[in-house]
Amino acid sequence: MKPRTRIPLEAPPRASRKAASIVIVNTGDGKGKSTAAFGTALRAVARGWKVAVVQFVKSERWKVGERDVAVRLGVDWRTIGDGFSWDSRDLERSAALAREAWRVASQFIATGDHRLVVLDEITYPINWGWIPVAEVVSVIKARPEVVNVIITGREAPEELIELADTVTEMRNRKHAFDRGIKAIRGIDF
Amino acid sequence: MKPRTRIPLEAPPRASRKAASIVIVNTGDGKGKSTAAFGTALRAVARGWKVAVVQFVKSERWKVGERDVAVRLGVDWRTIGDGFSWDSRDLERSAALAREAWRVASQFIATGDHRLVVLDEITYPINWGWIPVAEVVSVIKARPEVVNVIITGREAPEELIELADTVTEMRNRKHAFDRGIKAIRGIDF
Repeated sequence: MKPRTRIPLEAPPRASRKAASIVIVNTGDGKGKSTAAFGTALRAVARGWKVAVVQFVKSERWKVGERDVAVRLGVDWRTIGDGFSWDSRDLERSAALAREAWRVASQFIATGDHRLVVLDEITYPINWGWIPVAEVVSVIKARPEVVNVIITGREAPEELIELADTVTEMRNRKHAFDRGIKAIRGIDF
Repeated sequence: MKPRTRIPLEAPPRASRKAASIVIVNTGDGKGKSTAAFGTALRAVARGWKVAVVQFVKSERWKVGERDVAVRLGVDWRTIGDGFSWDSRDLERSAALAREAWRVASQFIATGDHRLVVLDEITYPINWGWIPVAEVVSVIKARPEVVNVIITGREAPEELIELADTVTEMRNRKHAFDRGIKAIRGIDF
């Protein structure tokens, strides 16, 4: 067979700087933003780290599979959101819940007991004006140096992109849902 | 605070078609392709599914954290690659290992005991001409209908994009490594 791409025979340049921790942003309209964050949480747990996950949109009513496994593995998992905004009967209550989630998350970050804190779907309540982005930036900037932070959600604000060490945009090239295929239990939740 | 984006108050249209299984491709030059696949594997395990992961590039010499946790959770995890191509002393051997990995993976897919099979970094040996893409396509097309497949790696060939139900391109917008920051144990591996 003819190769389609060149087989790389030279190693890329090596990185030399050791960071105590980093800030990661997973954004974009594609799949995998939260899922990759959970994958990283699993990796962190495997290395014996304490890990916290705060979910800013999903509500307690929505039981997802990854939560059970993560809790079994010792992850501190808080689901404090109010669900999809279009299901909300009271946006003031949704906003208050988002602020409560941020209070919990910012304590996790500031205390420094957890080496990884995942702020799952926090971009939505930020973009809806419920959580001030400046406050998120300052708490993350002032964090104990061993604390890594992962932020997920569409349309991450420029201030968070700026702050982050690593930013991945998950771009939707094709989505089963767009062709009418329902989410699959075990794959999508 | 002024919202930066409109709060969606109407639910998106609902999907109506139930697929027995889907094929997912995570490609692009950004982080999170494999990590999102592992996150999905964790979700599948949480639902009681049998899951297989075959790694086409990583070698047994490279111990990653996620593997330990996955094996503890009952995932059938096979690392059959020969490591980075630039470390290879014998590309023929690397190619043979990749073909062996494909033999194992295609059996997992065809047998149907596992409801999720992850082909981690398979795009590289395909693009290097070591595994025929037509064979990969035909094995996946002929799979038992309950078997979901996730393919990861850069530059996924058009044939796999075509075949997939969901394709996400992980695009690198910013990467700590590009600024000389080393991979962090617990985050990157």
